[in-house]
Amino acid sequence: MGFLDKLCAIAHRNNSWLCIGLDSELSKIPAFLRERHGAHAVLEFNKAIIEATSDLVCAYKPNLAFYEMLGPVGLEILYKTRELIPTEIPVIGDAKRGDIENTARAYAKALFEYYRFDAATVNPLMGFDSVAPFLEYSDKCAFLLVRTSNPGARDFQELNCLPPHPFPSPSEGRGGSRGEGEEGKPLYQYVAEKAREWNTRKNVGVVVGATAPDELAIVRRIVGDEMPILVPGVGAQAGDLAQAIKNSVNSYKELAIINVSRSVIFASHGEDFAQAAREAAIALREAINRARA
Amino acid sequence: MGFLDKLCAIAHRNNSWLCIGLDSELSKIPAFLRERHGAHAVLEFNKAIIEATSDLVCAYKPNLAFYEMLGPVGLEILYKTRELIPTEIPVIGDAKRGDIENTARAYAKALFEYYRFDAATVNPLMGFDSVAPFLEYSDKCAFLLVRTSNPGARDFQELNCLPPHPFPSPSEGRGGSRGEGEEGKPLYQYVAEKAREWNTRKNVGVVVGATAPDELAIVRRIVGDEMPILVPGVGAQAGDLAQAIKNSVNSYKELAIINVSRSVIFASHGEDFAQAAREAAIALREAINRARA
Repeated sequence: MGFLDKLCAIAHRNNSWLCIGLDSELSKIPAFLRERHGAHAVLEFNKAIIEATSDLVCAYKPNLAFYEMLGPVGLEILYKTRELIPTEIPVIGDAKRGDIENTARAYAKALFEYYRFDAATVNPLMGFDSVAPFLEYSDKCAFLLVRTSNPGARDFQELNCLPPHPFPSPSEGRGGSRGEGEEGKPLYQYVAEKAREWNTRKNVGVVVGATAPDELAIVRRIVGDEMPILVPGVGAQAGDLAQAIKNSVNSYKELAIINVSRSVIFASHGEDFAQAAREAAIALREAINRARA
Repeated sequence: MGFLDKLCAIAHRNNSWLCIGLDSELSKIPAFLRERHGAHAVLEFNKAIIEATSDLVCAYKPNLAFYEMLGPVGLEILYKTRELIPTEIPVIGDAKRGDIENTARAYAKALFEYYRFDAATVNPLMGFDSVAPFLEYSDKCAFLLVRTSNPGARDFQELNCLPPHPFPSPSEGRGGSRGEGEEGKPLYQYVAEKAREWNTRKNVGVVVGATAPDELAIVRRIVGDEMPILVPGVGAQAGDLAQAIKNSVNSYKELAIINVSRSVIFASHGEDFAQAAREAAIALREAINRARA
């Protein structure tokens, strides 16, 4: 079963387009768990969060950074976390990798074969050959960073671009002057167009932050109805949930995966953390479904 | 001691601007080592390569992908590899990470605190707040991807860009038309300018591929004399070594770190692999020094 089939099956069953980000940073985990389990508190924490929320989500998304910072033991915890997630729920490895082809192939192997993630986020800055090894896995999905949710997204992703001139003069180091009436568009739109172009196996997705609702609508127009958009930036990053959802769903009000991490998993730092995460997830699922309706 | 001091000290002592990339992919390691040690062959291999070449280099650069693909044991091997490298030789963790601020902080912690790398490569697509956590380590160095060595570099890094219009119309999804005479420049030059701007602690470097010699010269002009340029793409990727060096060194013929991975470490697949790597490294060091002269 391909990624999209798996995603839609669970989204319908759980009536949910909520993805919970397992950004389980050790220092933010309830103290009583850390005292009892040390670094392995991360695994106990994830286990409780997954058990409390697996009927409420369409996916989970662990961000590898919070596991890597613990060294090899963190990666063992990541592996075991993946095993705890019911097989019918897709897991998106949020790794944002990108490298030359033979290296990207090693990253794809790590994410899709070792950790058996159903999807991975990929940084497209290095272009097609850095993305292609991920696309060779036709039953997986590569979510390309198109317009991210953070303030720095404006530094490069919104630069107004034209394709390179057909006969550039590299020694000048200039693109040359422009004729009147030539139109540019922001870098993120070029990336979205490439995502559509590279989607020959129907296994490409895009990432657009909820903090950029106008850009969400533009990207949905570019990529069409069949491509999933992963939407981070709700919750701790304060994106407008309802607007983000309206602008990112397709014509069938689907395929917008709304990711929330910290404001769900760290809803409480007490003994009731799992129940608090469940309540936060219920509220978010409802808010998402209201905005879709 | 800051990264640049450490780098220059060993470069002078070893009379070398050669960096060896420890891209030690298990399947490419001599069969006799794999038969004897299984996955731990990677560590035995690295140990032999380091012992055979540590008087010939200015740095080592392991690419994390080839360790991650083995799962947690690969990260243990990476940790132990780092411990095998003499402390006076800087180690560049080639990880190309980039994420929102709190996540980038976790990646920086992993690379600079857990693995104790002296430097790391960083993907700048997500902008300043994704790079800033790396820059808070004033004795380390963050090498930003500016113009990479692979064919896909042309997809986005060479797009001809202008800054966003001051009053954009996001609902149109267009940068608007341009007036005659406005000049653009390729994306990679914007990144190089930001690298210079963000270098307030003298701990920023840039990555420019040897396969793009004209761009190397342009980037050296943009970043000035004080910033190191990490130059991959010689060897297996067939960049022109002499031209790349001439174009990337500063006025003192220094601070161009020439990285070679596969064509050194896999120079032989037999019992003589370490000696063959040493001979390849000697030849490269000489070729680099000839081109600098």
